[in-house]
Amino acid sequence: MSAYNRVTQADIDWFAALLPGRVFWGDAISADYDHDEMTEYGHYMPEAVLQALTAEEISRVLAYCNERRIPVTPRGAGTGLCGGCVAIHGGVVLSTEKMKKVIEVDTRNMTATVEPGVLLMEFPKYLEGTGLFYPPDPGEKTATMGGNAMTNAGGMRAVRYGVTRDYILGMQVVLADGSLIELGGKNVKTSSGYSLIDLMIGSEGTLGFLTRLTVKLVPEPKTNISLLMPFDDLEACIGAVPQVLACGCEPTAVEFMEREVISCAENYLGKQFPDTSADAYLLVRLDGASYDALRPSIDALTDLALSIGARDVLLADTEERKESIWNARGAFLEAIKGSTSTMDECDVVVPRDAIPAFVRRSVEISRKSGVRICSFGHAGDGNLHIYACRDDMDEACWKKAVSDVMNELYASAREMHGEVSGEHGIGHAKRPFLRESLGERQLQLMRGIKATFDPNGILNPGKIV
Amino acid sequence: MSAYNRVTQADIDWFAALLPGRVFWGDAISADYDHDEMTEYGHYMPEAVLQALTAEEISRVLAYCNERRIPVTPRGAGTGLCGGCVAIHGGVVLSTEKMKKVIEVDTRNMTATVEPGVLLMEFPKYLEGTGLFYPPDPGEKTATMGGNAMTNAGGMRAVRYGVTRDYILGMQVVLADGSLIELGGKNVKTSSGYSLIDLMIGSEGTLGFLTRLTVKLVPEPKTNISLLMPFDDLEACIGAVPQVLACGCEPTAVEFMEREVISCAENYLGKQFPDTSADAYLLVRLDGASYDALRPSIDALTDLALSIGARDVLLADTEERKESIWNARGAFLEAIKGSTSTMDECDVVVPRDAIPAFVRRSVEISRKSGVRICSFGHAGDGNLHIYACRDDMDEACWKKAVSDVMNELYASAREMHGEVSGEHGIGHAKRPFLRESLGERQLQLMRGIKATFDPNGILNPGKIV
Repeated sequence: MSAYNRVTQADIDWFAALLPGRVFWGDAISADYDHDEMTEYGHYMPEAVLQALTAEEISRVLAYCNERRIPVTPRGAGTGLCGGCVAIHGGVVLSTEKMKKVIEVDTRNMTATVEPGVLLMEFPKYLEGTGLFYPPDPGEKTATMGGNAMTNAGGMRAVRYGVTRDYILGMQVVLADGSLIELGGKNVKTSSGYSLIDLMIGSEGTLGFLTRLTVKLVPEPKTNISLLMPFDDLEACIGAVPQVLACGCEPTAVEFMEREVISCAENYLGKQFPDTSADAYLLVRLDGASYDALRPSIDALTDLALSIGARDVLLADTEERKESIWNARGAFLEAIKGSTSTMDECDVVVPRDAIPAFVRRSVEISRKSGVRICSFGHAGDGNLHIYACRDDMDEACWKKAVSDVMNELYASAREMHGEVSGEHGIGHAKRPFLRESLGERQLQLMRGIKATFDPNGILNPGKIV
Repeated sequence: MSAYNRVTQADIDWFAALLPGRVFWGDAISADYDHDEMTEYGHYMPEAVLQALTAEEISRVLAYCNERRIPVTPRGAGTGLCGGCVAIHGGVVLSTEKMKKVIEVDTRNMTATVEPGVLLMEFPKYLEGTGLFYPPDPGEKTATMGGNAMTNAGGMRAVRYGVTRDYILGMQVVLADGSLIELGGKNVKTSSGYSLIDLMIGSEGTLGFLTRLTVKLVPEPKTNISLLMPFDDLEACIGAVPQVLACGCEPTAVEFMEREVISCAENYLGKQFPDTSADAYLLVRLDGASYDALRPSIDALTDLALSIGARDVLLADTEERKESIWNARGAFLEAIKGSTSTMDECDVVVPRDAIPAFVRRSVEISRKSGVRICSFGHAGDGNLHIYACRDDMDEACWKKAVSDVMNELYASAREMHGEVSGEHGIGHAKRPFLRESLGERQLQLMRGIKATFDPNGILNPGKIV
């Protein structure tokens, strides 16, 4: 760490000449840049913020900083949840927020090529009229597509369609020394040497700086419907997941939600959830060619749900009904955040059949520690988002309690052969848990890879390894 | 290379004590071990062949060979097509042919865990009655699942289901120093540090020795039908592919076949193909819940095909009809092999809309060079298998001609932003083309990764990098 240099006035001048009007330092840096969505993990003000427009600029900045040993922290929209885009060792934040062009939509190859700063919420409008869509559907729609790629974001539709990794065909990346490489392209399969593109995906900007992304598109399903299944308790609800997945209906999404979290969302949105009868809900979405084509799956799922303890099965087949359910689901994170003073998050993934046991364990941990825990998540993927809420605990008490809670949650995940993060990444906040989960030999390999790509360690230092 | 030691009698004794009855040397080594399916790439007899039964044995062999600087070439069934499992630097071949246990089929998590030597053709019987299946479907059914993982094999169903990479959730791997690591598990998604498992997939045994594999299973579609579309010429046939893919019918397979290759297969199998009317055929397979559920897709595809030049659309909905078509398709490689003295192969992948141009180019190259070229392949993936057949050319003539043909084919693929291998890998035979395709900077990164995993270079030396 001591090997890094501070940013000098001469550096600022050099940056300013390269990126006129797009270099900020000292008091001119917005406080937004000192954190991501999880303020619990601290505030770190970078020495300068640079906004790039082109790969060429990024290449020149990296070559310069590599020479000068100045840390470079890549940043998109700053919506991460583990401090991945925060400059914990100082240096510069290099932002893609102005690289928002959709370069090409290629309907013949069913691909799109975008700059890394394109927001997830802005992308669909470029696909209108093509009959194609981009399946990854992380909850945070103001995230950038580059950020999604670098954290291998998941989202609601992963059960059927997979995660961001499954949709990345090509990347243009600037390496730490400023050299530019093209990984993949528009080819839909390859066995041509080590998969550098898969290594880059989910590397959180520690191996290279993503400057362009080519993603796979698929034909848009013409219809979708959602089934809301109320259960008497969480256990019965979660216990139904493996059977729902195995029934052959190819669900697009299988989410679980508890009454407490739904109430938070109702308060946050000022809108009622369409059902108030139950403590826990399973929400299943089906995509298909037509309502008629989905009919056998709807019938099969309904029969199944009622036979394994659902009180009812509510069909959401109108836009209004679907919106009222999915908007509530989409607001969970913000709603929980709004319900407490501060919070910590755990994004573990476990084998799908371990979900009931893990949820039960988290309830026990909450009871024992006195920390309120809210959870929701992608039941169909074995991926849970568990929030430990501080509420009105005093500082010392909270620090101790949240540390105990997190240690126990991650230890439980390890015991169940789970992994540290299902879709949010490691950043700096989850590094201790990654270390315990992977063990020294795998970390050695990761450090060796890091040293190969970035020998001076200037790219996003202090993250992952 | 000179850094490697020869296998001594003392080494043989050590191996024989560890693996009683499973060590072969000198004349006791079967000639099968000196090549894979492509004898064109030379014969290399290993100094010893070791057959392992357990990860523990593999760990001890690797630790020993790493210490002694003896090359270790991992080998499954030896069905590769680019010399990947051939001991070109001598040393030992370490074979998984006796590691054939299906360890577990976990229906709740929809996974199976297998030893690497399980043959692709043997695996389905372990899934009978579960309602689940393993989608990857490479043509070579006598290949091992471990070999499929290490080459990221593709196959017929990749259009809809993806390639082997998409089905690997967990791996147990022995590193060059003998240490054993567990990558992934039964989790269906993860963002937990660099994806070592994706790096291992397709690494052809150069980064680690695969000792156990956990794969994802999916609910088996209840019905499938195939549509055979005869076209007047190859160009019209191949030109139809992008529209077939974009029509929203989610085809499982889209294969193209020429009359010449079909005739080879007819001779090889001694059976007639169900249609003889055309020069080129597109073969489309659809999977679904029932014939009725597939009806709209069948109708849409039929209308589309007839509107873009197909002479007819033949529906194969009986087992007999399907078999007669798919057996012919499955026999292409062996049939072409049987039709000539020796041959070389090119497995390029190009963006799907470049396929017509690439096929046209290969016809020109054949004409110009006087080398007979047969091609078939996974049109829906942009992945072509092109065979240059020696027939009765004399040795000198053939060497020169085949070298020119391959150089031109790979140069054309590069021009069209394609990659060297769609699914067969690089081995030693395709290394020069990989170098030209990736450029020096990416090869540097790959060499750095190799050095991190295998500092002494004992694992499958001379392959990929």
